[in-house]
Amino acid sequence: MGNVIVGQSGGPTAVINASLAGVYKTAKDRGANKVYGMQNGIKGFIEGRYVDLSHHIRDNLDIELLRRTPSSFLGSCRYKLPSHHDNEEIFAQIFDKLKELEIECFLYIGGNDSMDSVMKLSRYAQDTGSNIRFVGVPKTIDNDLAITDHTPGFGSAAKYIGSVFKEIIRDGSVYGNGQINIVEIMGRNAGWLTAAASLARCEDCEGPDMIFLPETPFSIEGLYEKINSLYERNSKAIVIAVSEGIQLADGTYVCEYDSQSAKSTDAFGHKSLGGTASVLSGLVSEKFKRKTRSIELSILQRAAAHMQSRTDNAEAFLAGGQAVKAALSGMTGMTVVFERTSDDPYMIETALVEVEKIANVEKKVPDLWITENGSYVSKELTDYMRPLIQGELSQVMVDGLPRHLILNPQTLG
Amino acid sequence: MGNVIVGQSGGPTAVINASLAGVYKTAKDRGANKVYGMQNGIKGFIEGRYVDLSHHIRDNLDIELLRRTPSSFLGSCRYKLPSHHDNEEIFAQIFDKLKELEIECFLYIGGNDSMDSVMKLSRYAQDTGSNIRFVGVPKTIDNDLAITDHTPGFGSAAKYIGSVFKEIIRDGSVYGNGQINIVEIMGRNAGWLTAAASLARCEDCEGPDMIFLPETPFSIEGLYEKINSLYERNSKAIVIAVSEGIQLADGTYVCEYDSQSAKSTDAFGHKSLGGTASVLSGLVSEKFKRKTRSIELSILQRAAAHMQSRTDNAEAFLAGGQAVKAALSGMTGMTVVFERTSDDPYMIETALVEVEKIANVEKKVPDLWITENGSYVSKELTDYMRPLIQGELSQVMVDGLPRHLILNPQTLG
Repeated sequence: MGNVIVGQSGGPTAVINASLAGVYKTAKDRGANKVYGMQNGIKGFIEGRYVDLSHHIRDNLDIELLRRTPSSFLGSCRYKLPSHHDNEEIFAQIFDKLKELEIECFLYIGGNDSMDSVMKLSRYAQDTGSNIRFVGVPKTIDNDLAITDHTPGFGSAAKYIGSVFKEIIRDGSVYGNGQINIVEIMGRNAGWLTAAASLARCEDCEGPDMIFLPETPFSIEGLYEKINSLYERNSKAIVIAVSEGIQLADGTYVCEYDSQSAKSTDAFGHKSLGGTASVLSGLVSEKFKRKTRSIELSILQRAAAHMQSRTDNAEAFLAGGQAVKAALSGMTGMTVVFERTSDDPYMIETALVEVEKIANVEKKVPDLWITENGSYVSKELTDYMRPLIQGELSQVMVDGLPRHLILNPQTLG
Repeated sequence: MGNVIVGQSGGPTAVINASLAGVYKTAKDRGANKVYGMQNGIKGFIEGRYVDLSHHIRDNLDIELLRRTPSSFLGSCRYKLPSHHDNEEIFAQIFDKLKELEIECFLYIGGNDSMDSVMKLSRYAQDTGSNIRFVGVPKTIDNDLAITDHTPGFGSAAKYIGSVFKEIIRDGSVYGNGQINIVEIMGRNAGWLTAAASLARCEDCEGPDMIFLPETPFSIEGLYEKINSLYERNSKAIVIAVSEGIQLADGTYVCEYDSQSAKSTDAFGHKSLGGTASVLSGLVSEKFKRKTRSIELSILQRAAAHMQSRTDNAEAFLAGGQAVKAALSGMTGMTVVFERTSDDPYMIETALVEVEKIANVEKKVPDLWITENGSYVSKELTDYMRPLIQGELSQVMVDGLPRHLILNPQTLG
């Protein structure tokens, strides 16, 4: 067989390198001569930057370390290929290089934007009679890809969010002074990840008091009413989960609300220093005169390899491997998806679908799973997520910290 | 022997409950009839709120769970006792209640403010001929207590910070676009915890590029120069650790700098929505026109029981146990401290010192350990911290999340 090339694209997840490991190991096991890695995705490849992965993944211990390494081992890009009708030159350049490297299979690990690249490359191959196969491996913490039951990366981010919510809820309760913690979670348009805060509601934890997803218009007055009713029930501490992307009924993002009201930018021309939680924290603290804190989980939620889900890691590896097998069997313009074949006990199967069905489509949380006038999520949604956070991957600890595999250790000081 | 009472005070740490477990188990093992827990520290005790801990810690499994539970199991308070010359009534009330409960030993787990309470209570006992013994158990993530080599709670927070810095540094490197991440760490006056970011500099990680402690005046121009020189050396990503408490040479807190410059509050009267990292992020993004992100570790750094140091947990338990033994042996007005008897291999011993020497004193990072014009820390400081983050405590995972022990599970919905 010929050679294989793999790239990583879009925002990282805790398990995007498990998919890379799955691609590498499966390709090697099936006899690939060389497995190349594009640096910084298709953008870096166009610039001529790629590595022979066997120089960097030397043995099975390296594979285990790679599976435990956060962020994108090969670097990433946010780059959208043009249509090849608009700019054929760039495609000709890519394909010349692929031919030179004797590439037979091209695997691309990414979200819905990255699937757009897989689609365009496979179409160009079809149009030009190239027999290189292009297959996508899904990843995103946002869980917003169509068709697939869920995406690799989501389960680990959800496990992290469930865990830190338990810790935040315990921490918030210590003074019994009715303090309010507002926690901001990634997901501009889809609320899957914010919904993961509900996982913290379990035998030993009350869970967050409210959960606001971007799928439902957000009402500041509604928030005040709910806080009031919690205080009436003598609540000693309040924890609220908000998506970064929540909007008022008129379409204003909450994170822009405050600076609009202030009708000014500061001396440095910034529109707003704070995010959604910060704006809400300001409003709520003014209204209720209680200690209020905003907490942004920021990139910690996508980088927390130390709290990843073993289920998610195994599935991410599997998705990489299945993509290689599909490409070797002659499939192109496809991407791996998961079908849930049983809820209890949880089981999945993988399938391949045309990448057109996934590229550029966003899957949102269904209305049915949003409850309490948009301030919580249903048990069905929590039940859907629970299997995805099961199991842990013990970190390889060296001198007190998790060990990672990195591409260029020789560049370190 | 008589009964024992224990309280927790001040901000929580990941291992403040390990000290509670140490007090409980040691007191029980030595024949204490009852071990009471004050709810919300001395403040709650004054209000008559306390529990019989044996109703809540039922067996050795509960002790293991307690050691893995973040935040203060008994609740906490920020309450400073008056001098008994100013308000004898409150002391009379406390001592009446202690007599009624047949308390022989009073253990108080807290930071330097809490040691002030231990000092005042033991002095009152002395002045009034009471034979109740008052002993302190140190805790604080800030590591700012005098005399002791380090404080229980610091090692776990440092381990968490080292770990998430590795993750943040990996995450920041993916696009190779020179983006700047500014990470804010707790510690208003002492920079120990911020210095823990340096632990991320190890075989597989370049570590943060700069570390700014509150001990040294902060210069915005100096920051710009260092960023420029990193770009000149073709840096692909920059990560900066800042203490929340850094100040300009004129004493202005950086977190207040921006709103002062803007010379206005917003429509809701807030002085500033953002913290130190947020202010710096605004300035740096304006200056360098690069993607810049501010990340506040917020309460995650003190609540991350899931990433605690086994060394820290064991020492926190030990400190609780030694305090009980000291009180039983007749000591009062004392607190447990650690002496490092060997650096390599690391060893400590415990000792008891008069609480006056610790109460209300803050230990800062010595000048000698601050390097590069106040923008980094010395290898000696990292070497001092490294033993404190060694070892992990496996969490007890239930349904995908760490299980905690909580005081009133029956109140959960």
